Amino acid sequence: MFYHDKQLQYKVRVDKPNPQFARALQQAIGGIEGEIRVCLQYLFQAWNSRGPVRYRDMLLDTGTEEIAHIEMLATAVCLNLEGASSSVIDTIVGNDPLMEKIVGGGDPRHYLSGGLGALASDANGVPFNGSWVVSSGNIAADMLSNVTAEATGRTLATRLYELTDDAGMKDMLAFLIARDTMHQQQWLAVLEELGHGDMRGVLPIPNSFPQSQEVQEFSYAFVNTNIDPNQPSVGENRRWTHGPSIDGKSQFREVKAQPLGQEPKLAPPIPQGHAQVEQMQHANEKS
Amino acid sequence: MFYHDKQLQYKVRVDKPNPQFARALQQAIGGIEGEIRVCLQYLFQAWNSRGPVRYRDMLLDTGTEEIAHIEMLATAVCLNLEGASSSVIDTIVGNDPLMEKIVGGGDPRHYLSGGLGALASDANGVPFNGSWVVSSGNIAADMLSNVTAEATGRTLATRLYELTDDAGMKDMLAFLIARDTMHQQQWLAVLEELGHGDMRGVLPIPNSFPQSQEVQEFSYAFVNTNIDPNQPSVGENRRWTHGPSIDGKSQFREVKAQPLGQEPKLAPPIPQGHAQVEQMQHANEKS
Amino acid sequence: MFYHDKQLQYKVRVDKPNPQFARALQQAIGGIEGEIRVCLQYLFQAWNSRGPVRYRDMLLDTGTEEIAHIEMLATAVCLNLEGASSSVIDTIVGNDPLMEKIVGGGDPRHYLSGGLGALASDANGVPFNGSWVVSSGNIAADMLSNVTAEATGRTLATRLYELTDDAGMKDMLAFLIARDTMHQQQWLAVLEELGHGDMRGVLPIPNSFPQSQEVQEFSYAFVNTNIDPNQPSVGENRRWTHGPSIDGKSQFREVKAQPLGQEPKLAPPIPQGHAQVEQMQHANEKS
Amino acid sequence: MFYHDKQLQYKVRVDKPNPQFARALQQAIGGIEGEIRVCLQYLFQAWNSRGPVRYRDMLLDTGTEEIAHIEMLATAVCLNLEGASSSVIDTIVGNDPLMEKIVGGGDPRHYLSGGLGALASDANGVPFNGSWVVSSGNIAADMLSNVTAEATGRTLATRLYELTDDAGMKDMLAFLIARDTMHQQQWLAVLEELGHGDMRGVLPIPNSFPQSQEVQEFSYAFVNTNIDPNQPSVGENRRWTHGPSIDGKSQFREVKAQPLGQEPKLAPPIPQGHAQVEQMQHANEKS
Amino acid sequence: MFYHDKQLQYKVRVDKPNPQFARALQQAIGGIEGEIRVCLQYLFQAWNSRGPVRYRDMLLDTGTEEIAHIEMLATAVCLNLEGASSSVIDTIVGNDPLMEKIVGGGDPRHYLSGGLGALASDANGVPFNGSWVVSSGNIAADMLSNVTAEATGRTLATRLYELTDDAGMKDMLAFLIARDTMHQQQWLAVLEELGHGDMRGVLPIPNSFPQSQEVQEFSYAFVNTNIDPNQPSVGENRRWTHGPSIDGKSQFREVKAQPLGQEPKLAPPIPQGHAQVEQMQHANEKS
Amino acid sequence: MFYHDKQLQYKVRVDKPNPQFARALQQAIGGIEGEIRVCLQYLFQAWNSRGPVRYRDMLLDTGTEEIAHIEMLATAVCLNLEGASSSVIDTIVGNDPLMEKIVGGGDPRHYLSGGLGALASDANGVPFNGSWVVSSGNIAADMLSNVTAEATGRTLATRLYELTDDAGMKDMLAFLIARDTMHQQQWLAVLEELGHGDMRGVLPIPNSFPQSQEVQEFSYAFVNTNIDPNQPSVGENRRWTHGPSIDGKSQFREVKAQPLGQEPKLAPPIPQGHAQVEQMQHANEKS
Repeated sequence: MFYHDKQLQYKVRVDKPNPQFARALQQAIGGIEGEIRVCLQYLFQAWNSRGPVRYRDMLLDTGTEEIAHIEMLATAVCLNLEGASSSVIDTIVGNDPLMEKIVGGGDPRHYLSGGLGALASDANGVPFNGSWVVSSGNIAADMLSNVTAEATGRTLATRLYELTDDAGMKDMLAFLIARDTMHQQQWLAVLEELGHGDMRGVLPIPNSFPQSQEVQEFSYAFVNTNIDPNQPSVGENRRWTHGPSIDGKSQFREVKAQPLGQEPKLAPPIPQGHAQVEQMQHANEKS
Repeated sequence: MFYHDKQLQYKVRVDKPNPQFARALQQAIGGIEGEIRVCLQYLFQAWNSRGPVRYRDMLLDTGTEEIAHIEMLATAVCLNLEGASSSVIDTIVGNDPLMEKIVGGGDPRHYLSGGLGALASDANGVPFNGSWVVSSGNIAADMLSNVTAEATGRTLATRLYELTDDAGMKDMLAFLIARDTMHQQQWLAVLEELGHGDMRGVLPIPNSFPQSQEVQEFSYAFVNTNIDPNQPSVGENRRWTHGPSIDGKSQFREVKAQPLGQEPKLAPPIPQGHAQVEQMQHANEKS
Repeated sequence: MFYHDKQLQYKVRVDKPNPQFARALQQAIGGIEGEIRVCLQYLFQAWNSRGPVRYRDMLLDTGTEEIAHIEMLATAVCLNLEGASSSVIDTIVGNDPLMEKIVGGGDPRHYLSGGLGALASDANGVPFNGSWVVSSGNIAADMLSNVTAEATGRTLATRLYELTDDAGMKDMLAFLIARDTMHQQQWLAVLEELGHGDMRGVLPIPNSFPQSQEVQEFSYAFVNTNIDPNQPSVGENRRWTHGPSIDGKSQFREVKAQPLGQEPKLAPPIPQGHAQVEQMQHANEKS
Repeated sequence: MFYHDKQLQYKVRVDKPNPQFARALQQAIGGIEGEIRVCLQYLFQAWNSRGPVRYRDMLLDTGTEEIAHIEMLATAVCLNLEGASSSVIDTIVGNDPLMEKIVGGGDPRHYLSGGLGALASDANGVPFNGSWVVSSGNIAADMLSNVTAEATGRTLATRLYELTDDAGMKDMLAFLIARDTMHQQQWLAVLEELGHGDMRGVLPIPNSFPQSQEVQEFSYAFVNTNIDPNQPSVGENRRWTHGPSIDGKSQFREVKAQPLGQEPKLAPPIPQGHAQVEQMQHANEKS
Repeated sequence: MFYHDKQLQYKVRVDKPNPQFARALQQAIGGIEGEIRVCLQYLFQAWNSRGPVRYRDMLLDTGTEEIAHIEMLATAVCLNLEGASSSVIDTIVGNDPLMEKIVGGGDPRHYLSGGLGALASDANGVPFNGSWVVSSGNIAADMLSNVTAEATGRTLATRLYELTDDAGMKDMLAFLIARDTMHQQQWLAVLEELGHGDMRGVLPIPNSFPQSQEVQEFSYAFVNTNIDPNQPSVGENRRWTHGPSIDGKSQFREVKAQPLGQEPKLAPPIPQGHAQVEQMQHANEKS
Repeated sequence: MFYHDKQLQYKVRVDKPNPQFARALQQAIGGIEGEIRVCLQYLFQAWNSRGPVRYRDMLLDTGTEEIAHIEMLATAVCLNLEGASSSVIDTIVGNDPLMEKIVGGGDPRHYLSGGLGALASDANGVPFNGSWVVSSGNIAADMLSNVTAEATGRTLATRLYELTDDAGMKDMLAFLIARDTMHQQQWLAVLEELGHGDMRGVLPIPNSFPQSQEVQEFSYAFVNTNIDPNQPSVGENRRWTHGPSIDGKSQFREVKAQPLGQEPKLAPPIPQGHAQVEQMQHANEKS
């Protein structure tokens, strides 16, 4: 079963709200390469696991971590939809009219259906679809599906990183990119345990993003989200918590999950969003 | 952020595996009135919450609890797909040919795509759809949507209860029905705090299921899933943790989340499911 | 069975065509909180009704009314896509760049697939989905689902109202908002007949929209769409046609449906839409 | 705008309830060749019509008629889900094991989600999808799309006719098949007005169903659903109301819509469907 | 079975890249009136064909041709997403602000998910849906469905033609429009063989596009894609390869498929798309 | 562009038609792990390829091969829906009631919508969805996605193999399984060219299916579908056409595509499918 605390896994800050970027971030929430997909995929693989138990545990750990990533991105969407008009940036990034054209406007449902909130949809407002959740019953097929999800997910994250010059957003994405690095490693580690899984030269995918820009502290750390403080969910002999990483660039290690981010605090509802009167009156109450 | 342990919130046991019932259970996992929907709906409402913070906390608590319900139901699907052929029951329940006809066969994708595992789909194999996740930015609309989800969800659970005479499945459903009772109460409690929310005569929906058959210990208990043992996520003055329940039938109370179920242990893969060789060889290893 | 006349239930006028607003209006046509959904939901609940007959009748009356709302909104979309270029307004409303950014451009399929016509889709072009049609067989669950649909629908309508300063559009929306007020009341009235359904303080949802801006003549009127002029479809003892409204703010009354709007007249096809030659030649013929 | 009465357009009777047939009928409700699709397609074409007005009127008339067909089929689904177990037929029709195998079991959501009610889905439970609603802005393309819908729809109806030997169901389908005959004719009549539309040898599609088995009174009758009794919605000079039919087999005529069927009366809820207590207690009340 | 060569069926050139137009083109790839749909529809009708074999052959020929149309359009999307910022045109076409507003921005997933590549989706990013593939088993219904698909498809293509003043894009569309002309003819020719199929006055749909702007060499030519050079897939007595066209405007003829276009050569990946390093280093290698 | 011949890539034979198996085969046509998905995925990756050209060529070759696999499976579905009732097998395979229960009945739309033809849908009738087509612009991510698709696809094919004891079906599946073996190899060969891609111990996935049961002649052969007989689409220095296979079990080789199967010949339409009269009269005509 599952637990939560009130803080984010990593800090989420937006200096200059940008509804266009809010729309783009939705791809990382509800798109086929997004976090709802990997979250449900890892959890279903865990729940459907018919052994060995070490893989069930590992999948539970990481599936649980991914919920926190959806949470971070949803918070980022909300923060990008806020603020005084004057602070809205005019262009996606720098002076690139091509990218500005491609990204286009925001998602009108952020206002119309969400009152300035995130949706369970992709960057075009297409809803998350459960067909993307692969749990095949064959662990090698599942692990490949997981590496793929992290490879396309990390590619997406690096593209989002290029779209913004907001320092807060870049920092959040640098963390998520680091986690995608590790997650690619750990699924390949299972393949190595089963036989082989060597992908040194191509890892992490994409290999064109400078790893120095990641939050490197988390690039090769397995995050253990089991609440039991005394018992690591995975033991000494796991390939993904000790020894050299699959790409040979670092050493694996294991850390207990703990929040590095703040308890999110969004701006109160705007009047034209027509929240309830009481919501607006008491929006800032602490309890 | 989020944490897990390895046990289920409540015990899940199947005495006589039944693939038809496995299919029916999918509606409670991936259907519009199912647990993935309420889980994501409460979490998105929490993440999008623009105050007061008490409602964000409450939504986080219950959204987190719902993950455990998906887990229980996925486990139940797996267990219903297992076992020696001889133990498979022939009819849905008793001798009701009408219901047997309506339910029809199982879901072939349980085997073809899942290797005897649960899917993120409904009872017809239609994938979960993110459009069902309502987070409107208006708390009264959201709370009504939540009560509706629990009312249709509880109706579904009572119908599943009627479909089976497997004692383990009936017990699991009796727990989930109790939780749906409480969840209807708590969302109405928010409406009462905001003004009114009296629905005494019609609650819990459906009112035709004998509450004596619920696991009544949990019918009016708010489950706090916050990992901080010293700090209740919700305080003394919450309408949904103290005082008489909305339906006037009991008293609200608050309990810390703790697992009452087992760590799930599924049967090893069947040969014709073509898991990896190593998976089948090491299926029963403990670590 | 069903009948029609050629006029709209209420007048639909657009002073300054705005393709962005046309796109936003699509949410009220084909979105989860839109009119196709409530129309089909009420009609399916009527057709599936297993008694008492008073609720079947009521659902038929209002389900039929909702078809007229789809018609009004489709007409509004068409009118917002028309007109000389010079009359197109530049911004969504006033000088709010945040909202302008969020709403973005129009829906290219309005031209590409529709030839300047409305679609059975939401504001992002995502098609209407029949999974949203809830008809559970439990009348309390159904009524809650109906109130929820009207609460999110009215919230949407008030947001659309804020997006435009076109007097014609504001008038149309003020009528639809009034109808959403009544529809919330009437479904709660059924709950009150069954037991309780008191929601005084939170009604109508959202309670932050000034009811003085509604077309108040219709805020508490049950519209009877039965063609039989001598026989009201619902009798004297209905909670939703007599006595104080559920929110205590007015008195219920019943009116026979009659058109207050015009017979719609759209501009002829534009040449670049490539209608048939004969269509363009005879577009203005009266018969 | 729209009106209704409480009777069906044509009588719907089921002698031997059959959940398998209920499932098959869903294709005619919520499938791509079903009645929700043609209903919305004709209405959107009417609402989007940019002239001439004669075609808008015609589309409104027939779009409105189609709502009554959804109603008939939903009623038929409900009646096929009813009744004492002993009256359920065992096979789809006659002794054809191939067809019995193909059709398979019923739709479990008829019970689980609907409490023995119809759904807005197809025969596999896949929800109706708004993308099927074609309204292109080019009247020739639209008319071809309409003939196609009626050709595939009539093919479906004849296959359903072959699947059952229930006299009531055969009679209902014989009526719907006749209406599909006429609807094919009338859309081709528009094409003839615009130029040519001769399809004598292939009409009505499928041409392998003996027209003697249709309810022939309605095979070439345009049903006028306009409530104004004095003014036909379409005048003397319409190709589809006078003169020889397009297939040369009969003469067109126009009739005012009037109900030939009963006011539907479904059986009360079954206990295991868990309707509200009050629903079951008062199910047979007349008002 | 199937074969390919490396050249396009017809040349695809983009002078001024335009991401807005790239988005609009997606409707012709993945929309309901697009090329994936007709490709799969004709191929499934061929594969499901239960005779006569002449129609199976014909469907195979044209279904195979349609793959080449998807290829051309995907290439066109890619080329519209390329190039130095300065060359991007500012408006959709001429100075039409209405159309500019309707079309809006590009599709952010072209960058985020595709790295400047085409998607299997429509102009709003809604994925292609297999439900659109009609193969009814009744050849008249199928042929009508095919004519409809080509009529709506040709209407779409003429609208795209109006949206751009890029000479390369206009030329490509003029070819596709010509093919849609022929395809409408050939499906009607089957209907004529079966009985009648005269639509002289309304063809080709839309009849408002000047056929002089088509690539007329291909407007009435049946393209035979069978690889056997000595054996035409269809013989002398086919209605769609000899004699006057259905619309009476020309003569049918048959040509062997051969590529008139180039082997596509796209620009190398942009750095912010984060392809693999090796991809960017070796992008221009010939082998 | 693309070409075809009239024969199948490999022979397709059904000894005992089985509608249940027809339904199960649909997963390999229109499911997420099916052939439409890989076909479009490889073709879109080719069309979107920004170099090097060797990978574009390779993707075109294999994407084109996959069309032939859809064709084989669609033919297999049609053949499984045919035949005299008496030849229909009663159970899925052997005497396994568990599997019989899971697979359930057939797909009613095979008859209702297809007249005994295949659909572009999965085993539950859920339509193929274009969102599954991954073309990320990063070749390593794409290759991983391709290996995953072949791993889940091969797992599916081995499960279908276990479901039947029809010799014809087993032979067809043994061929498709061999092709999936090779396709896994070849995408990994690209990864090896780019750096590493060693997966010896886990290949081919699933590794629990005895390769001796594959049609081994094709297990390590790259099929070149380019029509130019003199020019291999890929040269001497390709990793996937020469040298040891990635799994070390064999040697790669290249073969020109040529049909090993028959020209399909399906049974004529059944009367209750209501094809056109002329279709049934001329079903057996050769031209």
